[in-house]
Amino acid sequence: MLTVAYDGTNYKGWQIQPDAPTIEGTLNDELTRLLKEEIHVIGASRTDTGVHALGAVCVFDTVSSIPGEKFSFALNQRLPDDIRIMASKQVADDFHPRKVSCRKTYEYRIYNDTFPIPTRRLYTHHVYGPLDVKAMDEAGSYFVGEHDFSSFARSQGADSIEDENGKGFPRSNVRTIYELSVVREGKEAVISVTGNGFLYNMVRIIAGTLIEVGQGKRRPEEVIDILNAKDRAAAGQTAPANGLCLIGYSFDNVL
Amino acid sequence: MLTVAYDGTNYKGWQIQPDAPTIEGTLNDELTRLLKEEIHVIGASRTDTGVHALGAVCVFDTVSSIPGEKFSFALNQRLPDDIRIMASKQVADDFHPRKVSCRKTYEYRIYNDTFPIPTRRLYTHHVYGPLDVKAMDEAGSYFVGEHDFSSFARSQGADSIEDENGKGFPRSNVRTIYELSVVREGKEAVISVTGNGFLYNMVRIIAGTLIEVGQGKRRPEEVIDILNAKDRAAAGQTAPANGLCLIGYSFDNVL
Repeated sequence: MLTVAYDGTNYKGWQIQPDAPTIEGTLNDELTRLLKEEIHVIGASRTDTGVHALGAVCVFDTVSSIPGEKFSFALNQRLPDDIRIMASKQVADDFHPRKVSCRKTYEYRIYNDTFPIPTRRLYTHHVYGPLDVKAMDEAGSYFVGEHDFSSFARSQGADSIEDENGKGFPRSNVRTIYELSVVREGKEAVISVTGNGFLYNMVRIIAGTLIEVGQGKRRPEEVIDILNAKDRAAAGQTAPANGLCLIGYSFDNVL
Repeated sequence: MLTVAYDGTNYKGWQIQPDAPTIEGTLNDELTRLLKEEIHVIGASRTDTGVHALGAVCVFDTVSSIPGEKFSFALNQRLPDDIRIMASKQVADDFHPRKVSCRKTYEYRIYNDTFPIPTRRLYTHHVYGPLDVKAMDEAGSYFVGEHDFSSFARSQGADSIEDENGKGFPRSNVRTIYELSVVREGKEAVISVTGNGFLYNMVRIIAGTLIEVGQGKRRPEEVIDILNAKDRAAAGQTAPANGLCLIGYSFDNVL
């Protein structure tokens, strides 16, 4: 099992594609070269073009005798510097990261000042004008719990779910959010959300909706009505990919 | 007067060069296009390839009637997103940013963990293994005051001084450091230094020396001997450019 951090700027997302650089494709290539056997990693979920990660997770099978903990060092010698293996370990042969329940945490970062700052442009979404972070945090509290998140899923519906722990949620838009907070860190507003799974674009639509709350365009308690509407059109805009970062997972049972 | 922030990753430093992208060259080009008169900015100082800035300063003369405060908005429409004008204002015609005394602040950021993190790779220098930040801060205190910094200047000597407020320090390596602190911010160690001017590579050589203190290779009070030696060979390595950021200036008298 690899814990993978990456800067998504130069990749067409996680999922392998024939003619574009992807995280999954890069990992497969370097593992195959390192181990001299064909490796296909299985990711716990996917991220879109431009989305970053500190703690993405994937697993692979190998006949290699390299100890699990050593893979991070061996791979980091080979990977481009915008992908790093932060940790590696051996897990049970039957562990499948999309077939176990987990908690998953995302952060969405907003740079809130008159002008965006170049050194944060790749990792934050710039919002000009004041943001009421307290109102955003209050609005965020209405997401906590088990809800049908159809209003916060890209409109093609559940079939197009991309960023998802596949099993356990077949064709359902019901998910549980355990925590959602919005805090100010200097000039950045940081949305942190932990749940048992997220529909395609769900965190970015939540972020876009919370930004509209912060701008005073919506009241915090409108989130209740938006959830009840079960209609994508009821929610706010999809916030851009670059502000989003997959922070990590906690799995219930991993050897 | 423009206050300029930039991500130095994609530029060959501040100073204009015929065949390479530079901050100065990009500003000249966009100002010339905007104002339809040939503009040459005068920078308060230069930065090297890969060094970043939050508050670089430059001035230019123009016959334009655009109010000073409006230049930031007009230029930011045109500049690439890795350069932003954070503020602009009219200053006295005879104000020259290298002919007035000022305080200038730099930050040097170290990412201190087993592996570097991709999303901070462009803005921090990675140091593996523990760093004693308290010892670094103690060592830093010995730099405060007026000293001959010959041990902390690139060995070609004062002729090759690049990052400098030109006048006032002719061929002298004596500078004053007002403050130098080293603090931990999460996994980053941040060196902040304010002085009346810095010799070429001076902050990066200070940073490299402080890292060696943090690693236990030198004692904090060795800084005194290194300063007294007035010999570049006495100091530590030059730390890489990407950890360095020009934070800003305070000028004594600006209209």
